[in-house]
Parts: sequence; C-alpha cells; structure tokens
Amino acid sequence: MCGQCVIDNVRQSMMSRRSLLLGAAATGAAAAALGTPRPALAQTAEAGGVSGRFSGVADLTHTLVPDFPTFSGKPQFEANQVYFRDKDGYNLSILTIDEHTGTHVDAPLHFSTDGQSVDEIPVANLVAPLVIVDIAARAADDADAQVTPDDLKAWISANGEMPDRCCVAMHSGWAEKVGGDGFRNADGDGVMHFPGFHPEAAAMLMEETGAIGIGVDTLSLDHGASADFGTHNSWLPTNRWGVECLAGLGALPASGAMIVLGAPKHKGGSGGPARVFALTKAA
Amino acid sequence: MCGQCVIDNVRQSMMSRRSLLLGAAATGAAAAALGTPRPALAQTAEAGGVSGRFSGVADLTHTLVPDFPTFSGKPQFEANQVYFRDKDGYNLSILTIDEHTGTHVDAPLHFSTDGQSVDEIPVANLVAPLVIVDIAARAADDADAQVTPDDLKAWISANGEMPDRCCVAMHSGWAEKVGGDGFRNADGDGVMHFPGFHPEAAAMLMEETGAIGIGVDTLSLDHGASADFGTHNSWLPTNRWGVECLAGLGALPASGAMIVLGAPKHKGGSGGPARVFALTKAA
Ligand SMILES: [Zn+2]
Ligand SMILES: [Zn+2]
Repeated sequence: MCGQCVIDNVRQSMMSRRSLLLGAAATGAAAAALGTPRPALAQTAEAGGVSGRFSGVADLTHTLVPDFPTFSGKPQFEANQVYFRDKDGYNLSILTIDEHTGTHVDAPLHFSTDGQSVDEIPVANLVAPLVIVDIAARAADDADAQVTPDDLKAWISANGEMPDRCCVAMHSGWAEKVGGDGFRNADGDGVMHFPGFHPEAAAMLMEETGAIGIGVDTLSLDHGASADFGTHNSWLPTNRWGVECLAGLGALPASGAMIVLGAPKHKGGSGGPARVFALTKAA
Repeated sequence: MCGQCVIDNVRQSMMSRRSLLLGAAATGAAAAALGTPRPALAQTAEAGGVSGRFSGVADLTHTLVPDFPTFSGKPQFEANQVYFRDKDGYNLSILTIDEHTGTHVDAPLHFSTDGQSVDEIPVANLVAPLVIVDIAARAADDADAQVTPDDLKAWISANGEMPDRCCVAMHSGWAEKVGGDGFRNADGDGVMHFPGFHPEAAAMLMEETGAIGIGVDTLSLDHGASADFGTHNSWLPTNRWGVECLAGLGALPASGAMIVLGAPKHKGGSGGPARVFALTKAA
C-alpha cells in the first residue's frame, strides 16, 4: 500500500467513524420520531467480508433498459451515443440516470441526513452471507404479501441462526414480471401492489440478528402499498443498506451463497445502479 | 429458476453466441486492417468463474467525484440532487456520466462494431484470477513506460504459468496520482504521459495465455502518448474486456487474488463505471 493510499484509508476510516457517530445521532432522532429507537450497526467492518470456498457465480442484476419499470412510474434512464466506431474509432455513450433505477442500492443516506453515502459503505459490508426468504407462493396469491417476523422464524427453524453480517433477501417471484405492468402493478388509484419487508421484520432483524443488508426482487424495500416507507425509515438510518430489483434469487439456495454488492462509488450518493453477484458454494 | 428466467437465459445465451460469431467476424476484419489477425476469445463461459477459498475483500475502485481526471480532459460526471431528506423524506440525485469515467470497464463494443456490449459480457468472465504485473519502479522514472512481453515473461518466471481466464493488471503506481495533474500528465502539446499495455504484450496474452481481461491503474489500456489505440484496437474486438483507473493494486500479491468486476449492465453499453473488488486468499 502506497503512502497516499494509507493517508486516504486513514482519512476514509475517520470519515466513516465520524459519519457513524453522526449517523447514530441522526438515527436516534429519526427513530424517536417513529417511537422505536433502533441500534446503529456496529462498524467492525475490517473483520467482515468474504469467507468460505466458492465455485460458481450467479448474476442477480437485471439488464437496464430505458423503459425499465420505476417506482415513480416515469422513465429514469437514458443513454445517448455520442461517438461511433465507424466514424470516430470507438463507441461511447453519455448516460443520464436516477440513482434509484434498475437493480440498485439504497445507501443509508437515502433515508437519513447523516448516514453513510454509497461511497462510504465499508467494503467489507458489500460482501455478505446471503439469506433468502422465499415468500413466492404467498405472493402469487397476494401481491400485498410482506416478509414478516414469522417468515424469518421459519427460515431460522429450517436453516439455523442467520449468519453474522448477512444480507436477507426476499424472493417473491417478482423478478419474472419485470417486462410487464405487473412489476409495478398499480391499481386504478395509482397505488402499487408488490411485496416487501414489513417494518416488524426489519425490526426483528435489527434486534435479534447481525444482518447488515436487506434485498428485494421488487421496486421497494417496503411493499408497494406502504403509505409511510416504514422499513426504509427504520432500517437505512442505522447504517444498514438495501438493494432493490434483484434478479435470479429463485435459482439460489436459502442459505450458503455470498452476495457481492457492486455498489457505485460516487461521492455523497444516496445509492445507485449496482452489479450484484452471488458466489455459490462448491457442491 | 423460474420459467421466465429460463427463457431469458436461453435468449441471452443465444444472443451471446450470435454476438460472438458476429464479433469474431468483425474481429477478423478489424485485425486484418491492422495486419495482425487475433483469435477471438473462446466462450466456454459457464465453466469459468470463481474458485478457491477466500477470506478478505479489497476495493479496487476510486471514489468518483465531478473533477475526477478524464481522458478527454473535460469533466465527465455530474450529480444533481433533486430530492432532500428534510423536505421530501429522502435524498435522491440524478447522475449524468460518460461511460468512460472513473474506475470503469471497456466492453469489447467500445472498440468494435459487433463485440459484446457491457451487458453481454458473460458473468463468468467478470470473476477472474488476478495477475498483477508491477512496473511501478520503471514508471517512476519514465511516465511513458509500457508493459512489454518481457514483463509478462518475468511474471511467469517468478509465478508460473498465468491461470486460465485470468485478468492481467498493470500496477504502475499511478493510482496515487489521481488527485493531481500528474494523473493525466499532459505536456505542453497536450500529449498525455502515463503507462499502459504495449500492443505486443496484448498480442502475447492473446496468443500464449487464456487471459480474458486486462486492467490498468491509468486512464487508458494504451499508454498516454499512444497515437493509435493499438492495444484497444487489437484486444477489445476479440471479446476480451478492459478496466481502467484501478485503485489499490499495490496492496495485493502478484498472484492469488480474484478480481470481481462489477460492470454496469445497461443494454448496448460500450462500458461504464464499475465497482471492482479483489477477493484475497486466506493466509
Ligand atoms: Zn432505491
Ligand atoms: Zn474506457
């Protein structure tokens, strides 16, 4: 490691510590407003990260297209090609994109004033054991289905305690709807109907497990009909992250894979399009 | 795996095969123009990917800021915050970015007419054994230093054959210059001076190894003073990828780590900002 890197790392770790303190304070305020104080995530980041033997890699990322469905209902991505191989020697486009488009990260800063921005999430938090909670059968009958504490308890009964510093992802079967109106599934009043994490499940994860991230295969950590972003508002201010619009969860085991969250790293970002992989264990 | 995913996967694999064929044809044409036909990369993608036991993760990504140095010399990234936690409940920005900005991928399509776009690179090619060729001592004395076949031979003498389907990265020490003018290092005529891969080194990698990617800690796969993008023009059309502006290579071993290239996945892209990690082996 070069001298500049050492300085940068020290500076970054100081910034992280500062933002953790600020984040914790902010969390207290935000949580107090909701009446439910939550513990900020302990930042023993250097100790985390990948472990185990892996033999495969799966892609959990949707291909991003201009008409990829969005929470807002408006297009949020555009690519304008400005150089062309034939004429200029190379192809190159300029992209315009809302941070919360396609398969993307919600940084703590998305729903906090001083939580970690996307570039401040410790790298060791971006590689995590992947817990998959499958509610696809229920969601097929009820688009308003949510991950509840009972679902988490059922996972634990079947698979044992959740691994420390894990990411808990909801598999609702929504990824296969991505090309059609069923992904947003808006009713006549414009209210969307798709699954998400119930705030009580988020609370249980914060209080009873060491989870550092949650993921969904839908457009929002909260279910589509949520009126108050209850899960966003309680989870993110504790310096835990979220990832939305995941693909490919149905092909993975409930336990044993590692998620690699290729979050973008622009300074001060509230999130952004991410390349997300799962490393799978040797058979 | 759900039915739609199966269909998508089949479609995607058909597309990949088609673009490989097109890519190979285009490669022939492009290489013929250069007088040096190169073999297209064999796409036995499903067999590739991660293997081995890992215990740590390192970040090879620079933080992206609006004034991050660019090849063009002009700013290429802008973030405009449009929603604010205090007023709107959440923070959200809209990003405008040139695909070739910050730590970023060069997809084969960047320098070809029918090579793989960034979303078409097989996922198994995005996780690869990482070979690091250290020319930092030479580059400290000569900003025009290039990775040559002799450097590759020296690496092989010291470390054994390069692993199949590896990424070969140049460590020139340039990452620590990123905050200053020395990163572009333009002379009075506007010609930049920084290290890169000599086209003969790229040729050797294509002919004598199974490398699928090359990486640099500078702004270009070619050295800054290159007049003809010789390495870009021979390497990328064979459906091999590149990654530029890597950080953190100096802290890694010459052999033994795996690179995880979190390439963006927008349809038809010539490349784009990437989150790049190295998985490091247990001690
Ligand atoms: Zn979001
Ligand atoms: Zn580039």
